[in-house]
Amino acid sequence: MTVLVFLDPAHDGGRVADASMPQLMATDLGATRGDGIFESLLALNGEARKVQAHLDRLASSARALDLDLPSEDAWRRAITTALDEYAAGARVQADTELAVKLMVTRGVEGADAPTAWVQVAPVPAKTRQQRRDGLAVLFLERGYDSTVAQRAPWLLMGAKTLSYAVNMAAVRYARAHDADDVIFTSSDGKVLEGPTSTVLLAKVRDGVKTLLTPQLESGILPGTSQSALFTVAKAAGWELGYGPLVPADLYDADGVWLISSIRLLAPVNSLDGQSITTTPELTRELSELVAKIS
Amino acid sequence: MTVLVFLDPAHDGGRVADASMPQLMATDLGATRGDGIFESLLALNGEARKVQAHLDRLASSARALDLDLPSEDAWRRAITTALDEYAAGARVQADTELAVKLMVTRGVEGADAPTAWVQVAPVPAKTRQQRRDGLAVLFLERGYDSTVAQRAPWLLMGAKTLSYAVNMAAVRYARAHDADDVIFTSSDGKVLEGPTSTVLLAKVRDGVKTLLTPQLESGILPGTSQSALFTVAKAAGWELGYGPLVPADLYDADGVWLISSIRLLAPVNSLDGQSITTTPELTRELSELVAKIS
Repeated sequence: MTVLVFLDPAHDGGRVADASMPQLMATDLGATRGDGIFESLLALNGEARKVQAHLDRLASSARALDLDLPSEDAWRRAITTALDEYAAGARVQADTELAVKLMVTRGVEGADAPTAWVQVAPVPAKTRQQRRDGLAVLFLERGYDSTVAQRAPWLLMGAKTLSYAVNMAAVRYARAHDADDVIFTSSDGKVLEGPTSTVLLAKVRDGVKTLLTPQLESGILPGTSQSALFTVAKAAGWELGYGPLVPADLYDADGVWLISSIRLLAPVNSLDGQSITTTPELTRELSELVAKIS
Repeated sequence: MTVLVFLDPAHDGGRVADASMPQLMATDLGATRGDGIFESLLALNGEARKVQAHLDRLASSARALDLDLPSEDAWRRAITTALDEYAAGARVQADTELAVKLMVTRGVEGADAPTAWVQVAPVPAKTRQQRRDGLAVLFLERGYDSTVAQRAPWLLMGAKTLSYAVNMAAVRYARAHDADDVIFTSSDGKVLEGPTSTVLLAKVRDGVKTLLTPQLESGILPGTSQSALFTVAKAAGWELGYGPLVPADLYDADGVWLISSIRLLAPVNSLDGQSITTTPELTRELSELVAKIS
């Protein structure tokens, strides 16, 4: 079951729409130009997680694309409407995981008003399985150097746009080459991010546990899950660190994960076909911290 | 007036749809991921131009994205249906210019079948005006080096995807900085292409006229209009040349144009705010050659 709620000034809580029928105009610039932005949130037990962090990042993406956004209140009301609507139509149990998407496009050509909606659907079984079983990952070059974001704002680095054709092509390339997912590298050899996730690694040295992630200045998307995990990990006694990281850092780590809002923490089992050690105890410990994020 | 014709196995000539109503599913991967491809053709006097060249490039884009495509015959029938439908609903005069778009997405999530349609609408007045008045152009870095396309097929360089957010952002950046359009450069300083056009320049030396364009190996889109113009220009006695080109080559040329299927040949009046010479006689001569393309 999929629920759609369009943000619509005429409907305070959003306008519920039939997801089994066409709801978008063929001239919507989201469909014809990938000209829009999105967020994906996890809802557990009927509650969406990290709503403010996702609304903050949506606002940041909107600024990069010069897009008008509905108010935060309108988004929150539409999310509530969509989750209520889902619960009314399907059985939501304590362990039901729902993917909540917030979508905004530049709107119908010539209309000069964004199209915005919330979609709620179950998290795919395959996504949950990757969280348990882990991932075979390929390093693929993203083509950009790690400093371009700062000098070329028109490249929209760090904005979560609907123009994900390259991200999807990279994952298809991985699947065609006996892998599950990808870690992008910059043309100057730095570790960047996954097509739909943030890279995380752990080092344990002399009893000191350190969590590391690539630095934002390299033009990667600011990870809402990575950021929230860093906060709870710090409170639990972890040291924190930020890149630049190179592939050798990942081979040398005590654990590598891809972290994202829906799949959560997925351990990396191999890099470019070479097995790596991602200690199960660290995965368990970090997964417990991830579970505390709200 | 806008006409939509969906390619549909149940309708031989395509299924005419009401463009004033929603026709796309909100879960179509074209809308949610920019995961699809397109072509834009000009129709003059009720006849679409360069249909085979556009179908060839569509097929090439589909291969890059591993997308299933309807047959060429199905496309041709749908184009005819759409143009007939337009003519039935609006007055088409000899000088009526129509933009014909061919669109294909990966389809609705989970459906495993592409969504494909033809759209016909008038060419915007502003587009025709730029053809006459010319363009102020900014050089903007595209972030890639000019050799990445050959080693990183997952970047989909040279495929005309629906993920055009960066192309649109670059044009917005130009408009916010007193310009009309953009010429992208590579991180190694080579001239690439416009966000929706091919770069063309002319040199006249000792009575020898040469038309030049950047080389395809730099990862640019193969220009159907540039290619067709090169063919007719050669027959008219022009020499032809291919890059690598650098910005200095454009400042030194006797004419610079952006060429594309809908806007056709648009003369460049300035580069980064500096006036350049695009000889009106050359624009006239090349425009007459462009008019011969069919």
